[in-house]
Amino acid sequence: MTAPTPAEVDAAMRLALDQAQRVKGATYPNPPVGAVILSAEGEVLGVGGTAPTGGPHAEVVALGEAGERAVGGTAVVTLEPCNHHGRTPPCVDALIQARVATVVYAVADPNPVAAGGADRLRGAGIDVVAGVCAEEVAAGPLREWLHKQRAGRPHVTWKFATSVDGRSAAADGSSQWITSEAARADLHVRRAACDAIVVGTGTVDIDDPTLTARLPGGGLAERQPLRVVVGMREISPEANVLNEDSHTMVIRTHDPHEVIQALSDRTDVLLEGGPTLAGAFLRAGVIDRILAYVGPILLGGPVTAVDDVGVPSIARALRWRYDGVDRIGPDLLLSLVPG
Amino acid sequence: MTAPTPAEVDAAMRLALDQAQRVKGATYPNPPVGAVILSAEGEVLGVGGTAPTGGPHAEVVALGEAGERAVGGTAVVTLEPCNHHGRTPPCVDALIQARVATVVYAVADPNPVAAGGADRLRGAGIDVVAGVCAEEVAAGPLREWLHKQRAGRPHVTWKFATSVDGRSAAADGSSQWITSEAARADLHVRRAACDAIVVGTGTVDIDDPTLTARLPGGGLAERQPLRVVVGMREISPEANVLNEDSHTMVIRTHDPHEVIQALSDRTDVLLEGGPTLAGAFLRAGVIDRILAYVGPILLGGPVTAVDDVGVPSIARALRWRYDGVDRIGPDLLLSLVPG
Ligand SMILES: NC(=O)c1ccc[n+]([C@@H]2O[C@H](COP(=O)([O-])OP(=O)(O)OC[C@H]3O[C@@H](n4cnc5c(N)ncnc54)[C@H](OP(=O)(O)O)[C@@H]3O)[C@@H](O)[C@H]2O)c1
Ligand SMILES: NC(=O)c1ccc[n+]([C@@H]2O[C@H](COP(=O)([O-])OP(=O)(O)OC[C@H]3O[C@@H](n4cnc5c(N)ncnc54)[C@H](OP(=O)(O)O)[C@@H]3O)[C@@H](O)[C@H]2O)c1
Repeated sequence: MTAPTPAEVDAAMRLALDQAQRVKGATYPNPPVGAVILSAEGEVLGVGGTAPTGGPHAEVVALGEAGERAVGGTAVVTLEPCNHHGRTPPCVDALIQARVATVVYAVADPNPVAAGGADRLRGAGIDVVAGVCAEEVAAGPLREWLHKQRAGRPHVTWKFATSVDGRSAAADGSSQWITSEAARADLHVRRAACDAIVVGTGTVDIDDPTLTARLPGGGLAERQPLRVVVGMREISPEANVLNEDSHTMVIRTHDPHEVIQALSDRTDVLLEGGPTLAGAFLRAGVIDRILAYVGPILLGGPVTAVDDVGVPSIARALRWRYDGVDRIGPDLLLSLVPG
Repeated sequence: MTAPTPAEVDAAMRLALDQAQRVKGATYPNPPVGAVILSAEGEVLGVGGTAPTGGPHAEVVALGEAGERAVGGTAVVTLEPCNHHGRTPPCVDALIQARVATVVYAVADPNPVAAGGADRLRGAGIDVVAGVCAEEVAAGPLREWLHKQRAGRPHVTWKFATSVDGRSAAADGSSQWITSEAARADLHVRRAACDAIVVGTGTVDIDDPTLTARLPGGGLAERQPLRVVVGMREISPEANVLNEDSHTMVIRTHDPHEVIQALSDRTDVLLEGGPTLAGAFLRAGVIDRILAYVGPILLGGPVTAVDDVGVPSIARALRWRYDGVDRIGPDLLLSLVPG
């Protein structure tokens, strides 16, 4: 019997990872998963990502594309196939029915309700290989969803734009633009993939942002995250954040935990500031990732990207770890995770 | 007739570049140059870097190692061989005498006194190839020396250590350590390769640094740059910066141009701050390169790495360009040049 080579399986997992990345944000509350079906000879027969809510899971999409030829083939999936009836029947049933010979997955399903897929597949005589590209998938498309499963609360990414010297605006408050169009386009892709964008009333008052995900041409992205405004004061009914482009939630609190609680049905929350709200979230220890777009400029002056983060002395510095350093046009994008 | 392949020449230039990097700092006032002699078959016969002041140039060191076998070979040098009698005879004479068939160099000599080497070599029937790895050499070991030749003043690198949010200390002033031991070791290598380290009286008063180049074990590096303290106030005669480890110059001024003037016989000046002096240099527009060691930490609070850089609004931001982004242990080292 022939089987795909390890290199073919690895390439298929990268294709699956790419599929997962593409559907990220559109699958709520399902995880963004990618799947590829290989023939016994290693040929790609089908490729799929999780369909929007209520639609088929990635494995089923890919199997549908592969058709009859999946028999004796290999399914390559970014997440352990599910073993439970949700809005759709279990993926393990579809794989058993399709009579694939092997299932390769990256990350085990930590969700006790859906887990057990690997065991059921083995029970049906299917070879199961776990852990291929596990780190990349866990740090990539599944990061926020895995965090939600484990911690029971949404994953919070704090994004900020800054000069090399840590400023978010010049002395007179002007900040358009600290970073390039390329960096802003990157941010809009991330907005389109998240579930909620959070800012304080200060940012709404001063910048009057729309907080939508826009396409390079300026049009609205297909999916718009929930917009969330935090603070006690009334915001203007004319504020752009209240326009028709998406839904908006106003949370009258100063407690980051209450914000997280109010968003507990979400997975991927993007905190966009400003400094007051970001400082409160940092002090509360509820930020899971930092994305810093750093423009190659110096501004000096009083407007720092964050003020009080609750650190009195260096021994109590908030210690993180770089998990990604990318150039985006003329700017840098630093990604940090807890150290 | 055989000759080294382009790949052999390229590899030899990288070896020469590495030699140049090693002698950087020790060759003042000569440029740090590297040279490699290849046989007609492409074999490495000799390798050399510029010897300390008054000693032989790189070509002569490498030719000495190659001996008789250099005849018909190729000399690969990071800088156009010199054509003038300084403390040593012209390198072109040595190359002509050694009867090499070809001379390959990276960067042309901008110094009108020393230039003309390529023409003399061609006149002697030697093949000359210019521009191999020119950008790497010009941005690397020769950067400061080329700047000095062109601008007529030393090259100034401003180095600072900062948290991701642009702080140089925590709220209580504590700053040991914002960056890792690996980053500090990297700084000491750079100190050993520069001609002068400059700080303000504030840094001497508060930190009492020694401002020496130290080896990983803690001992003094063989070569110590001049230590320079800028400011009007008297510094304590007990200050570490006045100890026996190196020479020290005190410049009683607030004008960065005067500092540069006082150091006009130097090539590679390292400005180490603090924020007041760095701000003055930035406002005066006399910084040629920025090196930011960025620790993966957040500090918040009032102590920023630089304060007033003379930018009232974003339109007048000081615009630079990343020319290097490296991970050093857990930290990042960002290198910026004028944009
Ligand atoms: N560089 C960047 O990436 C970035 C991103 C966003 C904004 N900004 C800039 O930030 C500036 C606005 O700064 P900001 O600090 O006023 O904005 P902010 O953090 O968005 O809003 C501050 C407000 O949030 C509310 N709030 C919520 N939780 C709080 C808490 N725990 N403690 C105190 N207040 C809390 C308060 O509003 P109430 O008084 O209503 O209670 C407070 O006034 C704008 O100029 C904008 O351009 C920069
Ligand atoms: N993060 C880093 O990389 C780094 C590096 C170095 C220092 N630091 C920190 O910086 C702190 C010291 O800060 P600092 O700003 O006082 O240090 P500084 O810049 O080293 O010294 C300031 C002094 O420089 C003199 N000076 C020279 N030119 C001046 C000008 N154009 N305008 C005004 N003053 C001028 C003045 O001294 P006179 O009054 O004598 O005239 C002034 O008080 C220390 O805590 C140190 O830890 C951090």
